[in-house]
Amino acid sequence: MNILEKDVAEMVNWIASFGGLENGGTTRLLYTPEWVRVQHELKARMEQANMTAYFDDVGNLFGRIEGQHANEPVIMSGSHVDTVVNGGKLDGQFGIVGAFLAIKYLYQTYGKPLRPLEVVSLAEEEGSRFPFTYWGSKNIFAIANPNDVKHIKDQDGINFVDAMTSCGFNFNSKPPRNDIKAFVELHIEQGGVLEREQKSIGVVTSIVGQRRYNVTLRGQANHAGTTPMNYRKDAVYAFSCICHESIDKAVQYGDPLVLTFGRVNPKPNVVNVVPGEVLFSIDCRHTDQQVLIDFTKELEADMRRIATELGMSIDISLWMDEAPIPMNGHLTKLLEQQCQAAGLNYRVMHSGAGHDSQIFAPRVPTTMIFVPSVAGISHNPAEHTHLADLTAGVKALTYMLYQLAYQ
Amino acid sequence: MNILEKDVAEMVNWIASFGGLENGGTTRLLYTPEWVRVQHELKARMEQANMTAYFDDVGNLFGRIEGQHANEPVIMSGSHVDTVVNGGKLDGQFGIVGAFLAIKYLYQTYGKPLRPLEVVSLAEEEGSRFPFTYWGSKNIFAIANPNDVKHIKDQDGINFVDAMTSCGFNFNSKPPRNDIKAFVELHIEQGGVLEREQKSIGVVTSIVGQRRYNVTLRGQANHAGTTPMNYRKDAVYAFSCICHESIDKAVQYGDPLVLTFGRVNPKPNVVNVVPGEVLFSIDCRHTDQQVLIDFTKELEADMRRIATELGMSIDISLWMDEAPIPMNGHLTKLLEQQCQAAGLNYRVMHSGAGHDSQIFAPRVPTTMIFVPSVAGISHNPAEHTHLADLTAGVKALTYMLYQLAYQ
Repeated sequence: MNILEKDVAEMVNWIASFGGLENGGTTRLLYTPEWVRVQHELKARMEQANMTAYFDDVGNLFGRIEGQHANEPVIMSGSHVDTVVNGGKLDGQFGIVGAFLAIKYLYQTYGKPLRPLEVVSLAEEEGSRFPFTYWGSKNIFAIANPNDVKHIKDQDGINFVDAMTSCGFNFNSKPPRNDIKAFVELHIEQGGVLEREQKSIGVVTSIVGQRRYNVTLRGQANHAGTTPMNYRKDAVYAFSCICHESIDKAVQYGDPLVLTFGRVNPKPNVVNVVPGEVLFSIDCRHTDQQVLIDFTKELEADMRRIATELGMSIDISLWMDEAPIPMNGHLTKLLEQQCQAAGLNYRVMHSGAGHDSQIFAPRVPTTMIFVPSVAGISHNPAEHTHLADLTAGVKALTYMLYQLAYQ
Repeated sequence: MNILEKDVAEMVNWIASFGGLENGGTTRLLYTPEWVRVQHELKARMEQANMTAYFDDVGNLFGRIEGQHANEPVIMSGSHVDTVVNGGKLDGQFGIVGAFLAIKYLYQTYGKPLRPLEVVSLAEEEGSRFPFTYWGSKNIFAIANPNDVKHIKDQDGINFVDAMTSCGFNFNSKPPRNDIKAFVELHIEQGGVLEREQKSIGVVTSIVGQRRYNVTLRGQANHAGTTPMNYRKDAVYAFSCICHESIDKAVQYGDPLVLTFGRVNPKPNVVNVVPGEVLFSIDCRHTDQQVLIDFTKELEADMRRIATELGMSIDISLWMDEAPIPMNGHLTKLLEQQCQAAGLNYRVMHSGAGHDSQIFAPRVPTTMIFVPSVAGISHNPAEHTHLADLTAGVKALTYMLYQLAYQ
């Protein structure tokens, strides 16, 4: 095992030990004792690596190497330190490990950069403890509103604000940061594309937009024995027509469109009653906002047509409508060039999941580097990436940060 | 309102008052205080109407008018006195009301019949308190085994045997009855066919056979954002293909085939995960056993083909396989003739639901008389039949019993 592999493995396992579970997974929720400990221990490691380490008001942790020139904008990399409940060792935290090791190596090897380098351990992305996502990154740009979290509680009834202040943090009193020249986030793919195509690196060009619906189909509940087929208004049958036709259409449409009917709740949901009602969910994603809107509008029209044909009523409620977020074209091009120059086995791709980068990207030139996920598993103790791929990811990030901070 | 209508209305409401609920419905479960009271009050009414009233060992109640000749076989009519939880005023009990009033009227008008007449208030059909159906009728023919119920309990943990003995009943020590010449059951349709076709009477020619399945489709749970469509094994999509294709086939096949996918339970059943597994139920019914078997075998093959095409595993478990029960041809013909002679507005039909008659029919010449159910609603406080139709049903039964007992 070479030195970088050893360092990557050591630091991934070290961070995972804060909130580490017997099953090999990790639970490290915002403003919990595990979370506080890892942030303070990370701060100590940053200082040992000659970084200036500091928290912002809400608990985002930065480790900074000053540049040669005063007042140059910052090159930043990192990811989130919180996990989901019973998560893996990589989601979020691997991006902190990669940024820390890359910046430490660059400083040891090349000394002071032209522009300051910062590794960031973002307070929160998942929203697993409190119902609020991207708290860490949103606070960097002052786009989280104190009112957003003032009345939210965790499952034990603990207030967000009480949890925050008990850790020594508070609402952000500082103006949004406008000193960042570029942000690069290293992350596991959480899907199976890179593994299937035997690639070590994904150069991310955009994060998909999402539209989510709740749909209720209302027919008529009836006796499964005494109601002839032509007198039925069977809501499960109507659902099956909608799901079948829509998924076929999505498959025919092709990548990067994805469409999921994840939740299906018929009523009364018993063997001998024709179901009178079905509530189901739709999750549709695409990298192009116009395509996403056009496709889902067509879906809505198809559903209304099928419901009408089958004599049913339908309620279609769009409750999430997030625009796709393109990564910075110059940065993704530069990343691709670095991968080519270093002979890394990469492909250009989009992200189907949300990441802190989608908060940075509209405000700061941003890109993401993906590494494969074994079997596409994530948010799970079985989350795993081969060490060689983790190392390739750290290398790609190192080359990028060198180009951005030293050239 | 004529006298018969008044008697029908009075007696339906009187029986419904035992276990009557504030919402207008009725809950009267086997061997409960409500059930005991109604059986004893019915016994008293039978005696007032000059019937010899008696219980058998398990609590079936009979009211008997002796015939002119000794040792003639019995003409019997009746139905079950138990209800489902929060049921209506008609299911089961209307058949007791009709038989009681018909026999009382016949005796008052024509005196002693040639053959004995018996009204029966059967102890139990629904299986709503204990997981055992047709306890009442099965005991008449000694086809219920004490072992079947020795270890079953109700929701409160009360043993079947304890509940039975506390009401003064016990296991049947008598041989099966072989003195019954004919059985006629009057019942509400519980479907919407008679109402839609504006008929007052259904002449029932058979009770459908039923096959019920539990099916488990196993694909692969995956991230709804990071898993491209062509890499998915979406179990809800596979279910939708199966349901859509099968229901279309059943509709094309036509009456009396019915097919219901009543229960659908996807896993994990959340909006942003491609469902990895679906458990669903199938209920298929037909009056012809060979057709039922052939159709469901084809269904099984279709499901296996679709699962294989989509790369999924499938478990198909047939857990109910009940043969259709034909009613007695001579009796249904006689019933039809009586309806014609009386100018009753009738149609010949099958029963899509199970009834006590299916226990009688293989052992005794049996037929059923249906009356319409408003909106096809049953097992529900809203269960209702217009008084004119209830009365037509009692008339049809009276004519039948006259033919069978006095001619």
